[in-house]
Amino acid sequence: MFEVELRCIECGKRFDLRDHYLCDRCQGILEVQYDYSSLEGKPAEQVVPAPAAGIWRYQSLLPVRSLSSVVSLYEGGTPLIHARNLGRAIGHDCLYCKDETRNPSGAFKDRPVSVGVSKAVELGFDTVTTASSGNGAASLSIYAAKAGLRCIVFVPEKTPIAKVAHAVTAGATVVRVKGDYSNSYALAKAASARYRWMNITTTFLNPYTLEGDKTVAFELYHQLDGGAPDWIIVPTGAGPLLYGIYKGFEELRRLGLLSKAPRMAAVQAEGCQPIVRAFENSRPVAAWEAVHTVASAIADPLRGYEKDGDLVVRTIRKSNGKAVSASDGQIIESVKELGEREGIFVEPAAAASLSALKKLLKEGSIRDKEKVVCLLTGHGLKDPQSAIKAMEIPQVEPGLEGLEKLDLGNR
Amino acid sequence: MFEVELRCIECGKRFDLRDHYLCDRCQGILEVQYDYSSLEGKPAEQVVPAPAAGIWRYQSLLPVRSLSSVVSLYEGGTPLIHARNLGRAIGHDCLYCKDETRNPSGAFKDRPVSVGVSKAVELGFDTVTTASSGNGAASLSIYAAKAGLRCIVFVPEKTPIAKVAHAVTAGATVVRVKGDYSNSYALAKAASARYRWMNITTTFLNPYTLEGDKTVAFELYHQLDGGAPDWIIVPTGAGPLLYGIYKGFEELRRLGLLSKAPRMAAVQAEGCQPIVRAFENSRPVAAWEAVHTVASAIADPLRGYEKDGDLVVRTIRKSNGKAVSASDGQIIESVKELGEREGIFVEPAAAASLSALKKLLKEGSIRDKEKVVCLLTGHGLKDPQSAIKAMEIPQVEPGLEGLEKLDLGNR
Repeated sequence: MFEVELRCIECGKRFDLRDHYLCDRCQGILEVQYDYSSLEGKPAEQVVPAPAAGIWRYQSLLPVRSLSSVVSLYEGGTPLIHARNLGRAIGHDCLYCKDETRNPSGAFKDRPVSVGVSKAVELGFDTVTTASSGNGAASLSIYAAKAGLRCIVFVPEKTPIAKVAHAVTAGATVVRVKGDYSNSYALAKAASARYRWMNITTTFLNPYTLEGDKTVAFELYHQLDGGAPDWIIVPTGAGPLLYGIYKGFEELRRLGLLSKAPRMAAVQAEGCQPIVRAFENSRPVAAWEAVHTVASAIADPLRGYEKDGDLVVRTIRKSNGKAVSASDGQIIESVKELGEREGIFVEPAAAASLSALKKLLKEGSIRDKEKVVCLLTGHGLKDPQSAIKAMEIPQVEPGLEGLEKLDLGNR
Repeated sequence: MFEVELRCIECGKRFDLRDHYLCDRCQGILEVQYDYSSLEGKPAEQVVPAPAAGIWRYQSLLPVRSLSSVVSLYEGGTPLIHARNLGRAIGHDCLYCKDETRNPSGAFKDRPVSVGVSKAVELGFDTVTTASSGNGAASLSIYAAKAGLRCIVFVPEKTPIAKVAHAVTAGATVVRVKGDYSNSYALAKAASARYRWMNITTTFLNPYTLEGDKTVAFELYHQLDGGAPDWIIVPTGAGPLLYGIYKGFEELRRLGLLSKAPRMAAVQAEGCQPIVRAFENSRPVAAWEAVHTVASAIADPLRGYEKDGDLVVRTIRKSNGKAVSASDGQIIESVKELGEREGIFVEPAAAASLSALKKLLKEGSIRDKEKVVCLLTGHGLKDPQSAIKAMEIPQVEPGLEGLEKLDLGNR
């Protein structure tokens, strides 16, 4: 299948496959269009080969034409873990975790960014930029380094230091912008227009990055033996990952490889939940005013691009899904449960998917035998401070005497 | 192939396959013995299948009998990256990086620990312990969590906080021990003897863990199309990784799959280099006195188990290899080069392999066309502070005006 053009999802206006971001007529979100017919009827293993060498196994479904433009660090191909211990603890057997912490930068962002940077190479850009709560910045930095492109990233002032260090070490120029994520978003957008940088902000702004997100669906299709789960729970900032995964399953359906797409559940933090609020009140998304949450990676107030949220709400409804929030306390508890039950160390935003699952089970939205996949979007090492506030770590002198006092010998 | 017994590498005394650590006659290191003859003549793809599902593809070469005892988090199967940008920069084409940062805990330790914890399950232990500079502790914690075992880890007081957070989040009891790594080593050894815990310290103490390290060799064999590199450079604390990789290649040779094992180069930090000193002076290893280096993950003074170092020196000599040191300044420079050229973010200890390569190229030990693999042992997110000391990160007000002052628009 070849990509054909970009098309505005609002008014349908068509654009060529260059660096367009939003529709110049109605400011609608742009999406890559493919000639699906060229792939129809081909065997599944040709269209969506089994995951192994990362997302570029799916090049026929990605909008980059020549392999020589591809910038890859072996992203994707992440494990799907049957979380039996955790399932037993919360009373739900069919629980799977898609472990996106295993990507090169430790977050799912490497999928969209690998596609975005490859497209930047194909289009001949020498500088790439992004606005990011930290994970996108770290990811763009390493792909830009690999590609030999200059990289300038905009992050909110409170971005965890490990993410900043990651970007700086890869040679990126990191600019901290006062205020919340939406300020960084606006500045990256303005700067890329002014200086002709490729804007690889992984919201809905860059139409190519979304295509990387959808590879999660192709991998799940294989990891679940040619099927889809009943539910996928996605930690959600602006929502491109949720939208992208659903798009991937819809493509599989369109290609005749699947009969039923999964139901999509978005989870946001109580302290920044513009999408959940709109979903619950059946109203258009309004920007969130006072952002306050430990889950920094999904703390996106959507100010100035509220309609990104509307698209996500529509997608959730279309899938017959749900949008729920989780408190910081519930999120931190979920970080610990994932660590203690499954040995997976995630950052707070990622753990929110487990908090949501517990809520959806409790309210009866998710039923007993339904197969659930939680997206674990980012590694705990990206924000270790959040996990260990108020923990006590004993320190002892060398020798068994000091140790005896801790009374560890008897269970 | 089945494992048969443990054998002391010094005096040859034999032990059954239970929790023995050192020879009770001479205190020699114990090694797992196999019945290689049962595998001889079988096709390579049966003996050492291609890497995909982690190290347990090689179960026939690992000392755990039943798959039901295996505790796995999809460790191993890490990418071998042809580092073309970096190779160009330092003038050596045939440079490959084995990216061990992609393991579940972000370090190669998951290989030995997966084997050690599986063996603990097989032997019926309910508690596991380790002494670790931090990476082994994080790794043991997540595997113990997955296995449902109690986990108590001993780390030096100065262990980076991210590694401690990793272990704590997985529910381990972390005990910080005053002084350097050797103090932690002694205390874990004493405590495991006193309380009957399985000691999964990944030096040479636990004979099973070493077997996990050797899986790097099997993967390289495939990734280099059925061959071995000319050189493998390994960041070295006590040295089990270097020894294990060499053992893996020797096993391939013994099985008739390979004609020539690679030359092994150890690198230590200038501030803790007992093995390098012994190698250079052709004397037995003596404990290092004052440990001082940014490369905490390889800062092992070997006090009380100096002969572990002697074994590593013998292995290096047998392979016709080298042992070199790197200064903290060189190591931090290498962290930046790996980030800026290849987009790989490593902790200081891992970057030491690049520092060593540059030294070995300069002195002519490694020649032009020789194929070199650098082991990148741990992720930069495990110790981000070390990478970004003294860095400047600009902060701006929202809006293009503040940005203009940074003068990023013009290249």
